[in-house]
Amino acid sequence: MKRYGKVIKIKPDKLDYYKKIHANPWPEVVTAIYECNVRNFSIYYRDGYLFSYYEYIGKDYDADMKKLSKLTKDWLQETDPCQTPVESAKKDEWWAEMEEVFHTD
Amino acid sequence: MKRYGKVIKIKPDKLDYYKKIHANPWPEVVTAIYECNVRNFSIYYRDGYLFSYYEYIGKDYDADMKKLSKLTKDWLQETDPCQTPVESAKKDEWWAEMEEVFHTD
Repeated sequence: MKRYGKVIKIKPDKLDYYKKIHANPWPEVVTAIYECNVRNFSIYYRDGYLFSYYEYIGKDYDADMKKLSKLTKDWLQETDPCQTPVESAKKDEWWAEMEEVFHTD
Repeated sequence: MKRYGKVIKIKPDKLDYYKKIHANPWPEVVTAIYECNVRNFSIYYRDGYLFSYYEYIGKDYDADMKKLSKLTKDWLQETDPCQTPVESAKKDEWWAEMEEVFHTD
């Protein structure tokens, strides 16, 4: 299992909508996350930032992430316009990967 | 079980030390975290921010957090000077609690 922590900015005028849609996520999105071997997935908000944490239990992360993007295409069309990548994000990075500096079970 | 996501800033000149000390955390700190009913605790870094995620499995969060502060007093004397609370943090808040906007198992 591999843990991921990621960060992105949220547009202030889109925060309410983002929270609303995530309070009742589409069942097919929740199913897709599970099918793509992502577990224990949380998103947190504060001060214009969204932070996400999840655990990946599959064997081909890139393939599963590609599959997840496809399966959740309609959902991402709703949520992507709410977000802005952080300044340091790589060219093809949306949510920017953070560095794990500590972990204990 | 209750999940927590928290955020704090790290002083740029203290980042290396913070990462170094967390790469080999003191055993008594790891034990204290466990004894105080905190599980699956990770800290992530990016762009001057630290994000922490953990799961609390106890019954008296405030009491356990007070106990944890006491047990890790010497450790916090090393790590606190590395950090600066975010601007929106409450007066008595160090790590600032984030709002959970999404979760799926």
